[in-house]
Amino acid sequence: MAQRLIFFHSFLAKTKLYFTIFQCILRKKCEVMDLEFISKLVKQNNSKIVLLVLDGLGGLSLEKDGLTELETANTPNLDKLSKKSICGLQIPVGNGITPGSGPGHLGLFGYNPIKYQVGRGVLAATGIGFDLKPDDIAARGNFATIDENGDVTDRRAGRIPSEKNKELCRLLCENINIPGVDVFIETVKEYRFLLVLRGKDLKSNILDTDPQQLDVQPLKTKPTNPDSVNTADIVNEFLRQAKDILKDQKPANMVLLRGFSEKPDWPRFPEVFGLKSAAIASYPMYRGLAGLIGMDNLEIKDGSIEEEFNVLKNNWEKYDFFFVHIKKTDSYGEDGNFNSKVKIIEQVDSMIPSLLDLNPDVILVTGDHSTPSLLKYHSWHPVPVILYSKYCRADNCESFGERECMKGGLGARFPAEDLMPLALANAKRLEKFGA
Amino acid sequence: MAQRLIFFHSFLAKTKLYFTIFQCILRKKCEVMDLEFISKLVKQNNSKIVLLVLDGLGGLSLEKDGLTELETANTPNLDKLSKKSICGLQIPVGNGITPGSGPGHLGLFGYNPIKYQVGRGVLAATGIGFDLKPDDIAARGNFATIDENGDVTDRRAGRIPSEKNKELCRLLCENINIPGVDVFIETVKEYRFLLVLRGKDLKSNILDTDPQQLDVQPLKTKPTNPDSVNTADIVNEFLRQAKDILKDQKPANMVLLRGFSEKPDWPRFPEVFGLKSAAIASYPMYRGLAGLIGMDNLEIKDGSIEEEFNVLKNNWEKYDFFFVHIKKTDSYGEDGNFNSKVKIIEQVDSMIPSLLDLNPDVILVTGDHSTPSLLKYHSWHPVPVILYSKYCRADNCESFGERECMKGGLGARFPAEDLMPLALANAKRLEKFGA
Repeated sequence: MAQRLIFFHSFLAKTKLYFTIFQCILRKKCEVMDLEFISKLVKQNNSKIVLLVLDGLGGLSLEKDGLTELETANTPNLDKLSKKSICGLQIPVGNGITPGSGPGHLGLFGYNPIKYQVGRGVLAATGIGFDLKPDDIAARGNFATIDENGDVTDRRAGRIPSEKNKELCRLLCENINIPGVDVFIETVKEYRFLLVLRGKDLKSNILDTDPQQLDVQPLKTKPTNPDSVNTADIVNEFLRQAKDILKDQKPANMVLLRGFSEKPDWPRFPEVFGLKSAAIASYPMYRGLAGLIGMDNLEIKDGSIEEEFNVLKNNWEKYDFFFVHIKKTDSYGEDGNFNSKVKIIEQVDSMIPSLLDLNPDVILVTGDHSTPSLLKYHSWHPVPVILYSKYCRADNCESFGERECMKGGLGARFPAEDLMPLALANAKRLEKFGA
Repeated sequence: MAQRLIFFHSFLAKTKLYFTIFQCILRKKCEVMDLEFISKLVKQNNSKIVLLVLDGLGGLSLEKDGLTELETANTPNLDKLSKKSICGLQIPVGNGITPGSGPGHLGLFGYNPIKYQVGRGVLAATGIGFDLKPDDIAARGNFATIDENGDVTDRRAGRIPSEKNKELCRLLCENINIPGVDVFIETVKEYRFLLVLRGKDLKSNILDTDPQQLDVQPLKTKPTNPDSVNTADIVNEFLRQAKDILKDQKPANMVLLRGFSEKPDWPRFPEVFGLKSAAIASYPMYRGLAGLIGMDNLEIKDGSIEEEFNVLKNNWEKYDFFFVHIKKTDSYGEDGNFNSKVKIIEQVDSMIPSLLDLNPDVILVTGDHSTPSLLKYHSWHPVPVILYSKYCRADNCESFGERECMKGGLGARFPAEDLMPLALANAKRLEKFGA
């Protein structure tokens, strides 16, 4: 009888737990329009969608009451397109949040950038085009300086030049020896490098070794999960050897590691949205991001804007979705070069007729974030959007610019991750929801 | 053996279930831009932020096609400020929701007002400036009338005047005797009072005793958690004694209790946002709310608008963030006094130059909710906002008013809780999210 009672209680407890989980899942599902929700509505047709991303497009005026870079640029073709489009301003991550390139693009691709976070290590690998395997562990490394007591005196080793970095990576590669583990050490830029460990049963649940402050010793890593004890031991052995190998170097005589991570096992873009998808991007970071979610990266040679639009034209029949990435709007924004950012926007504008000649069903023109020349940095400001399709319900926007887009039909600050569902809808690629 | 195996499986299943729930909760946390998310991005600098709250600012016109209180007011300084700002209308809690003062302000302070709910008892304590200790149990009380059968005939005892209330509170204080428990009974207003119990191991998980209907007996409280059995017994003993002490009073011969609660253990505003923060407010409720989340309350004497701006000036160097609260816009709104509400807005407008003289990096001007004179009550209407900073990306708003703000760059109904992240971003106090 006692046994039966215990079983009964156990049964009750389980039922209650299942119920809680069920409620939890139910609530989650009901409240958000996530990839799974959209994916179930996807249907096929022959339509074509182009997502044209001018990196860091949004800007600010240099003077009080002045014009932004986009407002200054002479863009007759984008203005004409905006008149037959629905426009607006999108928020990549959230109000007030300045996105990195990863979150900025993931939002445009329809992935909630707070849910889908790329580890620093994976992003570093992505950024230099390192072909990360599913079980690899990646970390972002800094060359740093420590004093005779072993305390960190410079977390960036005086920002050593990339050439010195390459020399040190070679030195480490030649001398590190951890049985059973392949160790890859690759230069990223200046004091930054990529560490990749490849071996059996490696796990990324381990802590950073960068103490993020001076005058303390670099940290040893620690596992945050029992499955990572072995990996932590391997990383600490790597650190021991690296310290020894670098001991006579100046100023870079130590390494600090951050953001241990594995290639994420995310839903793949082509499957989620039912789109055979191609990325046309010249920079490794963006090619890597597109690759992470399963897009094909088309071959680029000189990386000019003209080349990117030619590649688009030459592959038009092979894909349903094209992500075209223009880098230099962001680069000039970060340089604080207002006029050159304007010129790049004008150059893209001049390519718009060749895009229209292909007769896409849906065109999105936007950026992954703002990079105002005034701030010389990514910023939190919402990003202008053009959404063109035959069925877009055009608004009253007369030109393509920050202030004009504020009055647009998409609203003055709508979530970037809603652009993909809108694009699919305009391409007639989404079924009705519910009967 | 078989039994043991089953138990083991049961244990495993439960562990796995708990883990799933945990993951589920974890994931949910990761997807939203909550205090934790923002807090991780906060960095320090010397910028200063002013949040100027005109309580109940939003309004309605008295006549068809007429102007609201704010639109009627002659506000040359706010209009001028709005031209170099980004404007909009914020929703304090949600579309259609009329906020109380607690949720209205918590939203402005960046706290999701649906997640961070203040118990009625704590709010009553806050409202009269009662210094609640961490383990105190507070409840909102009504003096009520019961008939000879003990049934409630008036839940508000004919809205007895505050003077009578004070007399009854004294009577109760002098005669209640519960060994081991300090009992505080304080007048709030008219029929409302505050009950605070201070003792060992008191817990607030107990039910209201107000039946919320007439012709039934007041309820005894019940524990909703095993840890509150003792507290429920104490409250029921208090009710027994109070009924006896008040038995010959007319019309207030009984008490009803609601909203048993403890001082919440919330993230503190200065730590979350990295801001040394001061509240400049003359009414106890708002001083109490600011105190609950860890702001310093600056000393106020006569409570005039001029005094508040003087206190701001005199403390300018000591803080990073100032919450300045103007009460009378709401009071006149609740009185249905359209013209006096207009006059208060004009008076605040006249103080704006002295605010600008301090050269704040970010200025927010808004309300905690609307209080249209037409409705004589808080309302659900979105509230006008000015957000000024050098980097705000000014929109096309030409003046400060409900209709003008609808075309603002912040949008026509954006969440109040996004104002703090926006203010921090404009003060350059947020790091980039993701690489």
